[in-house]
Amino acid sequence: MTASWVPDVTPESPFSLANIPFGIISTKDDPTPHLAVAIGTYALDLKALSDGIGLGEIVPELKGHENVFQQTTLNAFAALGRPAHQQVRKAIRDLLTAGTPNQAAKQLQENADLRQKALVPLRQVTMHMPMAIGDYTDFYAGYHHAFAVGSMFRGPAAALQPNYTHLPVGYHGRASSIVVSGTPVRRPWGQILLDPAAEPKRPTTAPCRRLDFELELGCFISKSNEQGTPVRIEEAEDHIFGYVLLNDWSARDIQSWEYVPLGPFNSKNFASTISPWVVLTDALEPFRTKGIDNETPVQDYMKESKAETAIDINLEVDITTPEGDTTTITKTSAKQLMWSFPQMIAHHTLGGCNMRTGDLLGSGTISGTEPGQRGSLLEMSEGGKRDVMLYGMDVRRFLKDGDTITIRGVCGGNGERVGFGECTGRIYSAVQR
Amino acid sequence: MTASWVPDVTPESPFSLANIPFGIISTKDDPTPHLAVAIGTYALDLKALSDGIGLGEIVPELKGHENVFQQTTLNAFAALGRPAHQQVRKAIRDLLTAGTPNQAAKQLQENADLRQKALVPLRQVTMHMPMAIGDYTDFYAGYHHAFAVGSMFRGPAAALQPNYTHLPVGYHGRASSIVVSGTPVRRPWGQILLDPAAEPKRPTTAPCRRLDFELELGCFISKSNEQGTPVRIEEAEDHIFGYVLLNDWSARDIQSWEYVPLGPFNSKNFASTISPWVVLTDALEPFRTKGIDNETPVQDYMKESKAETAIDINLEVDITTPEGDTTTITKTSAKQLMWSFPQMIAHHTLGGCNMRTGDLLGSGTISGTEPGQRGSLLEMSEGGKRDVMLYGMDVRRFLKDGDTITIRGVCGGNGERVGFGECTGRIYSAVQR
Repeated sequence: MTASWVPDVTPESPFSLANIPFGIISTKDDPTPHLAVAIGTYALDLKALSDGIGLGEIVPELKGHENVFQQTTLNAFAALGRPAHQQVRKAIRDLLTAGTPNQAAKQLQENADLRQKALVPLRQVTMHMPMAIGDYTDFYAGYHHAFAVGSMFRGPAAALQPNYTHLPVGYHGRASSIVVSGTPVRRPWGQILLDPAAEPKRPTTAPCRRLDFELELGCFISKSNEQGTPVRIEEAEDHIFGYVLLNDWSARDIQSWEYVPLGPFNSKNFASTISPWVVLTDALEPFRTKGIDNETPVQDYMKESKAETAIDINLEVDITTPEGDTTTITKTSAKQLMWSFPQMIAHHTLGGCNMRTGDLLGSGTISGTEPGQRGSLLEMSEGGKRDVMLYGMDVRRFLKDGDTITIRGVCGGNGERVGFGECTGRIYSAVQR
Repeated sequence: MTASWVPDVTPESPFSLANIPFGIISTKDDPTPHLAVAIGTYALDLKALSDGIGLGEIVPELKGHENVFQQTTLNAFAALGRPAHQQVRKAIRDLLTAGTPNQAAKQLQENADLRQKALVPLRQVTMHMPMAIGDYTDFYAGYHHAFAVGSMFRGPAAALQPNYTHLPVGYHGRASSIVVSGTPVRRPWGQILLDPAAEPKRPTTAPCRRLDFELELGCFISKSNEQGTPVRIEEAEDHIFGYVLLNDWSARDIQSWEYVPLGPFNSKNFASTISPWVVLTDALEPFRTKGIDNETPVQDYMKESKAETAIDINLEVDITTPEGDTTTITKTSAKQLMWSFPQMIAHHTLGGCNMRTGDLLGSGTISGTEPGQRGSLLEMSEGGKRDVMLYGMDVRRFLKDGDTITIRGVCGGNGERVGFGECTGRIYSAVQR
């Protein structure tokens, strides 16, 4: 356990020296979005820091790339590739370590004006979208979720399609409506069947009545590949920049009516929320573990040399009612996935599809096998048939206006925690029509 | 019929004075992509023109927006909105009309140096992607195609899902792999079932054997809408910038294995090709007509005040074999759609999904009811069961390496043609693995 000279880096902090996640902030003094890392309860403003000390002094290898910290997104930094991310992360960790002989650290500690500009309390910064997202792909690798939800939509016998264990099923999502944690989410209108059993089907246009969250892990692409050139499984890891928490809000009544035969559309495209700090691949390396076993032999192009390709991130979901009462409704782990992100990348690019820096991959909803481990209300309420008990004798089957969903994710123990912070969103009433 | 002083604007030209489509070119003298319009066999270089004469001289209303013609995409111009597009199109038409009293036209005609810079033969320009595409959505509004293909995948009784006549079915496509006409298309690898009937299913990883094209119309968004704020049907037309031809290349064997339950993925995301010139909404106004009747009452949010909401664009598809023989295999019309683009926009944004300038909507495959009017080889070959006869006694069921597909689209008569030019792509062999 390494200590930082930055005040208030408590042992419980998800932003320990072992983490160093990257995000995009703006401050009162500098309202243009720019790069920062989180340390304890502070944002280290990388623009102010490199303006004050010079990037070459902090990360000699990045001399000539001064402008990457001045950008409004992490894309240019991500595009530099994993060795550069490792160098920068190590340099920043050195800079922030207590008793470091680092010269830049000395400058930062001794120059009160620079320190005040460069270390800004997190409560005083505004977080922005960390990446400009070109394309968003949502996978379906959470086996327990896929089985549970498939059972509801199609019955247990046809819950999983024959392809499920042969390839990571995924679909293209909507990039434009991905928002950063804290952004309000408006209840969508849509076509729904008030009486799904009636024949002929008579849809109604109405605000969604079965609004749900989905607990997912998001993965950002760093290195792009050329169109027509697949990414091989052994190289896929080097195309990953890092991870965020992802809430893929879902309108279940809209979904069940619209989704055949081409997949979910308006039921998913009104909003998806991500946490603001991107936790780099290397910070999560110590928490590798095995994912869900797949007994089906995997095609060669997705065979991995390592067995531990999942990440054991402890995930929790809170619901906070309009009255302000909070209940933790889910505790599970990001290891509950049957396909790894490298496998998803190898499959996604098998036909030559080009991925670009900033593309986002969603894992699919993450659920465990037990009650209390489910990644959506659809599962907890067994398709809307059962009340989910909340603190204060309140109940939910789906989300009410004014409800807030907060996802948290953290790995590791006291003083060495690698956490994501929060991914939160509150539901606002549907527009008047 | 209005004549142009530009030489070689023949009566057969798709780029008549009635058209004035916008595109992105580069030339030997100016290799940075920038704006142009097509007139006859020439590109009118809008950057060279506004550098030479001044944009305010040509379109007084655009004074202060000089930089829109210097951009590398049409996005900034599209974002100005429909009144600006109308002003610019009218001003350029005036400029190019024979006998015009237009002062800028006089300068252009009398200044040989400027004329040579600003009017470049089309064969000497390189065409680029016209727009930076944020999100790509592919609809399924070609009723005859949806019925024919649905019958093959699921049998005639379940060919169309109950939702088909109630909403424009669509799905999110892949934006990164959309390429401009002329770009080579590599045959994708994918998971396919060599014996689809065998149980259990045993997929093989192999190059696609059932590679197909899809004849579609593409629609570019001009004005964005805010997240949470639907576009009303009566305003939807003003969110459309213009149209291109679209070939949504499809790998049928990959598609049939992967597409349940979340829709097409790798079968579509390896490449889609668009024609380079964007034909503006107003140029197509005279060719409005009725689309395919929908006997199902349409929900209020998609009710249109006009009956003529389709566009009668004559569409043709050629296949050119590696030996160089060309056969026209399809002749149909863009009126063969059951949903209009304004309806698609109203539906897409019903739940609050935000569309951004440059977003692309595909119509879905356009097929007529007769043989010779089908928009895909899948339909022509009846699911790969029947040979499609080509010139020179050659046959196809699906595409061979070295085949070229060329889509053409044109409205109107001699001297007043409003055409799209070509949307063409040649198939190259799959990568070696």
